[in-house]
Amino acid sequence: MRDPHAPTHPPDGPRERSAVLISAGTELTEGIIQDTHVRFLSGELTALGFRVLRGVQVPDDRALFRAELDRAVTEAPLVLITGGLGPTSDDLTREIVAESAGVGLDFHPEAWDALLARFSGRTVSDTNRKQAMAPRGFGLLPNPNGTAPGFQGDLRGSLVVAMPGPPSELRPMFSTSVVPLLGERFPAAGDRGVLWGTALMVPESSLEEALRTCAREAGCGEDLRWGTRVDEDRIVFSLRGGESAERDSLMDRLVRHLGAVRVRRGDMRPAQLLTDALLARGARLAVAESCTGGLVGKYMTDLAGSSRVFWGGFLTYSNEAKSRLLGVPGALLAAEGAVSEAVVRAMAEGALAGSGVEAALAVSGIAGPEGGTPGKPVGTVWMAASVERGGVEARRFNFSGSRDMVRRRAAVAAMLLAESLLRGQEFLDTRGKW
Amino acid sequence: MRDPHAPTHPPDGPRERSAVLISAGTELTEGIIQDTHVRFLSGELTALGFRVLRGVQVPDDRALFRAELDRAVTEAPLVLITGGLGPTSDDLTREIVAESAGVGLDFHPEAWDALLARFSGRTVSDTNRKQAMAPRGFGLLPNPNGTAPGFQGDLRGSLVVAMPGPPSELRPMFSTSVVPLLGERFPAAGDRGVLWGTALMVPESSLEEALRTCAREAGCGEDLRWGTRVDEDRIVFSLRGGESAERDSLMDRLVRHLGAVRVRRGDMRPAQLLTDALLARGARLAVAESCTGGLVGKYMTDLAGSSRVFWGGFLTYSNEAKSRLLGVPGALLAAEGAVSEAVVRAMAEGALAGSGVEAALAVSGIAGPEGGTPGKPVGTVWMAASVERGGVEARRFNFSGSRDMVRRRAAVAAMLLAESLLRGQEFLDTRGKW
Repeated sequence: MRDPHAPTHPPDGPRERSAVLISAGTELTEGIIQDTHVRFLSGELTALGFRVLRGVQVPDDRALFRAELDRAVTEAPLVLITGGLGPTSDDLTREIVAESAGVGLDFHPEAWDALLARFSGRTVSDTNRKQAMAPRGFGLLPNPNGTAPGFQGDLRGSLVVAMPGPPSELRPMFSTSVVPLLGERFPAAGDRGVLWGTALMVPESSLEEALRTCAREAGCGEDLRWGTRVDEDRIVFSLRGGESAERDSLMDRLVRHLGAVRVRRGDMRPAQLLTDALLARGARLAVAESCTGGLVGKYMTDLAGSSRVFWGGFLTYSNEAKSRLLGVPGALLAAEGAVSEAVVRAMAEGALAGSGVEAALAVSGIAGPEGGTPGKPVGTVWMAASVERGGVEARRFNFSGSRDMVRRRAAVAAMLLAESLLRGQEFLDTRGKW
Repeated sequence: MRDPHAPTHPPDGPRERSAVLISAGTELTEGIIQDTHVRFLSGELTALGFRVLRGVQVPDDRALFRAELDRAVTEAPLVLITGGLGPTSDDLTREIVAESAGVGLDFHPEAWDALLARFSGRTVSDTNRKQAMAPRGFGLLPNPNGTAPGFQGDLRGSLVVAMPGPPSELRPMFSTSVVPLLGERFPAAGDRGVLWGTALMVPESSLEEALRTCAREAGCGEDLRWGTRVDEDRIVFSLRGGESAERDSLMDRLVRHLGAVRVRRGDMRPAQLLTDALLARGARLAVAESCTGGLVGKYMTDLAGSSRVFWGGFLTYSNEAKSRLLGVPGALLAAEGAVSEAVVRAMAEGALAGSGVEAALAVSGIAGPEGGTPGKPVGTVWMAASVERGGVEARRFNFSGSRDMVRRRAAVAAMLLAESLLRGQEFLDTRGKW
């Protein structure tokens, strides 16, 4: 039996297709710039069937960088290094790899010629000569987009690939030179299928519980695993492993369990769902936003090409704006309060009339932290959707969380309410806490 | 002489102030989401005088996570873990720390009560009980913004701190609970004063260059260092070390170098700057947004209590909405185009007239990726601010970057233009690329 604490090869993936990613640069460990290479490369490698054991950001420090590289080659057959190929003294990648391999650096005249050609006319400094060098026995990877070529070769049985730090140089080099190399060195494996889904207005813990229940009921095997990513407006989840039919069956059960409003196939943004419903009806949308203050409009126009469906709308944060722009009677505001069914209905109707378009949604609530009352605590949000010749639907939600969370949840709920009305589908039961 | 290959303590920093950062989550090593914690925390720690030895992203895998933690505590006296505190079975942080410490998990009734209070009314599932647990001997860190408290305690002589993954929970917890803890556990060397500043509409590389130039001119010593944190709407920077007078002098030079519109003392959000200027004038604001689609309204109403200054406004994404809601003549739109000085002036005036309030701002531009022309490429944005009895100011910007970046930059610029007009101050030279 293997020792579960042995810090060596991963327990549930073959060493043959695992990788460690190293991003070099003190600017990464002092918070000056954001490392984006681990994300990019791990996405690409995952798609190619590799398992990424870790991504690491190391400063430009000989001992720390060297330790990281030595550790990586004992654990993974593939090590990708990014950065540290520039001309300056803190660019250490070539030297660290050569030291670890116990070899010197070779000067490559053809790389030097390519560099001179790139600099045509400008002065090339002596420090740039370093960029035409690579550890002995390593091959160069051409860099049509910058001065530093990459290099690749064998280090104690692992393939080590070094690529430049600028994303505009790294990404084409990876696709053009590294992917074919990986195809040669790591022949492909079996079913690597994945099924993506989106959960809307579902807390992460409820999604987990629902996935467990449904997987048990569907008799899913142990290799079917899931992962979740919580975003501003949704949770994206993936079902991986198992047979394709097994993943489909789990997804179908989940849709029945949580409802078709809250679970969608694919990675779907709520604004996209409403956009699609508007396109299907040939309708344009006007919004009337109070507590969300522009957030629904922002989400709708995050999507490029939103002018096909998004007409515009009314930011009616103050009661005066609700009356002046949407015609909500002052007496109604006084009698019912701005956060009430009657007012959101009047807002949605006012937005339809004021815009002349075919669909409208309205939101009014108490985002907090101030402004709550016993009858309408912080988190109380009324919303209405209205469609020309399709009626009006109004709902009340009781959201929990911070001001920011209440606003985001209210915007998402309003978009889904409008989508349901446009599609003629049942909406959610919104009683209780959300 | 020490062995230069020993993968132990860093060569050029005392063990006393070094740290390792671990971000847990398979979504980070499969390219699904971008880790931003290493950047945030390493910026904060650098500013506090720590040296970050590395940042690591590990998948939700017991053996890999455990190996990373065990290695970290042998190397650094401070280990910060983010993520893995959710209720689901792949949230492993509590168990891994407890295993490594050789202790069990304790249930904390007070954390459970806090969680129940947060869920008031909704069903709390059994899986959530896990979130009220922590390794025996570790203390809880309250989380006012989410369900999972953090925890902290000693592991073989190192301080291990675990924090939740969502940035909106992590960041306040770090500032409120972890910074004071670090102050106790790692007594400061000398003057630990810090001066905070905000840079607006300044690319990070330009800020870095400006800081270097000004520090050289001011003759600042080597101990005066800076750290930056890039947010959606601003860059917050800290000047630390050196004498207090030295930090002040550097800040003054920086204000002169980049201009008083772009550099502010303290951590200031653009929406707060405009809110303060409106309060100082006793004015309320109406907005007229085209390409930003609600983002200015969203930023203004992100601030609690925004109803004192934010009246509301007009989302005029379509040309029809510009005419119908703001009275922009169709002939003017046809002759000048929606992205023009004449149109944004008419939009700002229409917003003033349509709302009846004292100040308005208008934005119209080409956010992309489609819609650019040779004369008005993607990134061209016109904006205008108008104040009752204070005139109108209009400016054109040429922003670079993605759709999302153009929209964020345009919203920030418009708020600062309105602030300058309200304060009677000079605005920026907006010619050239931004």
